[in-house]
Amino acid sequence: NSYRIASIPGDGIGPEVVSATIQVVEKLAKTLGTFNIDFEHIPWGTEYYKQTGRYVSEDCLDTLRKYDSVLFGAVGSPDVPDHISLWGLLLALRGPLQLYANVRPVRTFPGTKCPLNTATDGIDWMLVRENSEGEYAGQGGRSHVGQQWEAATEVAVFTRVGIERIMRFAFETARSRPRKLLTVVTKSNSMRNGMVLWDEIAALVAKDFPDVRWDKMLVDAMTVRMVAKPESIDTIVGTNLHMDILSDLAAALAGSIGVAPSSNLDPTRKNPSIFEPVHGSAFDITGKGVANPVATFWSAAEMLVWIGEKDAAKQLMGCVERVCAAGILTPDLGGISDTQGVVDAVCLEVEKL
Amino acid sequence: NSYRIASIPGDGIGPEVVSATIQVVEKLAKTLGTFNIDFEHIPWGTEYYKQTGRYVSEDCLDTLRKYDSVLFGAVGSPDVPDHISLWGLLLALRGPLQLYANVRPVRTFPGTKCPLNTATDGIDWMLVRENSEGEYAGQGGRSHVGQQWEAATEVAVFTRVGIERIMRFAFETARSRPRKLLTVVTKSNSMRNGMVLWDEIAALVAKDFPDVRWDKMLVDAMTVRMVAKPESIDTIVGTNLHMDILSDLAAALAGSIGVAPSSNLDPTRKNPSIFEPVHGSAFDITGKGVANPVATFWSAAEMLVWIGEKDAAKQLMGCVERVCAAGILTPDLGGISDTQGVVDAVCLEVEKL
Ligand SMILES: CC(C)[C@H](C(=O)O)[C@@H](O)C(=O)O
Ligand SMILES: CC(C)[C@H](C(=O)O)[C@@H](O)C(=O)O
Repeated sequence: NSYRIASIPGDGIGPEVVSATIQVVEKLAKTLGTFNIDFEHIPWGTEYYKQTGRYVSEDCLDTLRKYDSVLFGAVGSPDVPDHISLWGLLLALRGPLQLYANVRPVRTFPGTKCPLNTATDGIDWMLVRENSEGEYAGQGGRSHVGQQWEAATEVAVFTRVGIERIMRFAFETARSRPRKLLTVVTKSNSMRNGMVLWDEIAALVAKDFPDVRWDKMLVDAMTVRMVAKPESIDTIVGTNLHMDILSDLAAALAGSIGVAPSSNLDPTRKNPSIFEPVHGSAFDITGKGVANPVATFWSAAEMLVWIGEKDAAKQLMGCVERVCAAGILTPDLGGISDTQGVVDAVCLEVEKL
Repeated sequence: NSYRIASIPGDGIGPEVVSATIQVVEKLAKTLGTFNIDFEHIPWGTEYYKQTGRYVSEDCLDTLRKYDSVLFGAVGSPDVPDHISLWGLLLALRGPLQLYANVRPVRTFPGTKCPLNTATDGIDWMLVRENSEGEYAGQGGRSHVGQQWEAATEVAVFTRVGIERIMRFAFETARSRPRKLLTVVTKSNSMRNGMVLWDEIAALVAKDFPDVRWDKMLVDAMTVRMVAKPESIDTIVGTNLHMDILSDLAAALAGSIGVAPSSNLDPTRKNPSIFEPVHGSAFDITGKGVANPVATFWSAAEMLVWIGEKDAAKQLMGCVERVCAAGILTPDLGGISDTQGVVDAVCLEVEKL
C-alpha cells in the first residue's frame, strides 16, 4: 500500500492549504502505519508561467500519469486574466485527462451553520458535475473585434458518450446512497439540442436503475427547490456550467464554501484523478496564514477513498470533524485559529487514533 | 390617458392570474378615474396550437404592435414538450420584438418570509437580465442523431450592440436606485469569448457612469454572495441564462417565487413591452382556483409605470401590500385564501382609495 501523489499547490492560498494537508496526511500515514504515501511537488502555476510562458510542462499529461492521484490547491492570480490561468492549468487537465466526473459532496459540517431556516437538519447532498465537455468545451470565438457589429460565440458541445457516462456514474452514485434519489438538471425548455439530448439519455439510462428514484428539474427551478425544499434533494447531476453554479450555491446553503471539497474523477481509472478544494486562490487572504484548510483535508480524504484507503479516510474525517466541532476554526467560519492552529489540532487528534 | 393592452393568458394558471389582474386593474381605473384601460384578449397558447399548428398567429409581431403593452400569463403544457411551447410563444416574442431588457425586482414582500437568516432586513434587489441573445439565441443543432458518436451544440451568441445596450440600461437602473450599486455577472474565467466581451464592455460603459459604484462577479461566486452577504447587493446585470437562474434564486431567497414579477422591455419603445409573472404555468394547481395572483398584480403595476401611470401603479401596489400584510394569502404563501378571495380583498382596498 504505497502511493505516489503529485501535489500541485498552484497559486494564492493553494500552497498554504496543500502544505497543511500534506502535514496532516503524512501524520495519519505514520500513525496508522497501514499505508505509505509520498507527495511530490509540481511547481505549475502563475510563477511557472511567468518563467516559462506555460502554466504546465509540455508533457504534463504524461507527467501526471506517473502518479496514483493528484492533490491540487488553486490557480488564478490578480496579474493574469483568469481565462488565461484557468485554461492554462485547471481546464488544461480536467478535459484532456477525461476526468469526466466532478463529484462534490455538500453537507452542513461541524462548526458551520446552515443559513437556511427551511433546513432544520442541515443539508446533505451529493453533486455530480459533468466535467469534460458542455459549456467548457472551449469552443467559440470573436469576429469583427472592436467594431460596432462585433459578434462572439460560446459553443457548448454535448456528446452522447459524454452524457451517457456521466449519467451512469450519477445513477450509480445515487444508488450507493441511502435515499437512492437522483435529480437530473437541464434547461431543455430554452435549449433545444444538447439539453434535449440530456433528457433523452437520462430516460434511457434510468431504465437500468429501477431501484433509483429520479426526477428532472430545470436549472432555474432547481435553485428554488434547493432553497425552499432542501430535504427533497439527495443526489444531483447536471452540466459543467449548471453544476458549477449549483455546487457553489449548495456549499453556501450548507454553511460554507470554505469546507467544500471536489474530486475530478476518471471513473475508468486510466488517468489519475485530481482532488481539490472548491474555494479557489483567494488572493485577499493569501500569505496571512489564515486560509481554511478543511476543504483540502476533505479533498484528501476523498482521494484516500479513491486510491483504496477507505478506513484511513474515515479516520481523517473523524479527526477533522472533532476539531471543527470543538470550535477550532479559521476566521471565515467565525473562529480565531490560523491555518497552522487547525493543522496542529488535527494532528493531535490523529495522534490519539 | 387611454391605453389598449393585449392580454395573453396562455396556459396553466395563466388565465386565472390574468383574469384576476384584469378585474383589479379595471377596478383601479374606474375608482381613480384618471385613466382608461382596455384589455383585449388574445387566445395564443397550447389550445391555439392544437387547433392551428402554431402557438401565435403568423402576423403576431404586427398584431402586438397595435397595443400599448402586453400582459402575459404563462405558457407550457404537460402534453407538449417545453422547448416547443416556449419557443412557440414566449421566446418567439422576446427576441423578435427586441425586448432586450428583462427587469425583475425582487424583495421580501408583506406576507412572505425570507428563508435566510443572513438577511435580517429581508431582501431588496433589482435584477436586469439580457433578454434577446446569449444562450437564448436559438442556435445549435444535433448531428448523428441516435448514433453512439452523436454530438449536439448549444451556441450562445453575444453582440457588442446587444451587450452595450443592456449594460447602459443596467447602469441607468442602478443610478435610479438609492444605493447606486451595480454588480456585473459573467463567467469570463471559463468562457473566453462572449464573456470576456461582457467584461470589456462593462468597463467601457462604466466610464459614463462615474456616480455608480460597480463590481464584477463570476456567476457561481454570485450565488454564494447572494446567500452569505445579501446586504452587499443592489442591482445585478447578466446574461439571459445566468439571470434566468439568479432571478429564480433571488425570488426564492426573498421569500417566494409566487410574487415575483417581470417586465420584458424594449427601452427604445419601438415595440410594446410584455409584463408577466415569473412563476410559469404550474399545472399541478391549474383549475383549482388557488393560484397566487400577486406576481401578476405586481407585473401589471410595472406595466402601469411603463405606460406612464406611475401614481396608479403606486396605489395598486399599496393595496396589494396591505392585503398581503393582513394575511389574505393563497396556500403557496401559507394562507387559506383562494385566488378570488385575494382579488376581492384587493378590490375592496381599491374602493377605499
Ligand atoms: C476556477 C473555475 C474555472 C472553476 C470552474 O468554473 O470550473 C471553479 O469555479 C470550480 O468550480 O472548480
Ligand atoms: C419558461 C422559460 C423559457 C423562461 C426562461 O427560461 O426564460 C422562464 O424560466 C423565465 O425565467 O422567464
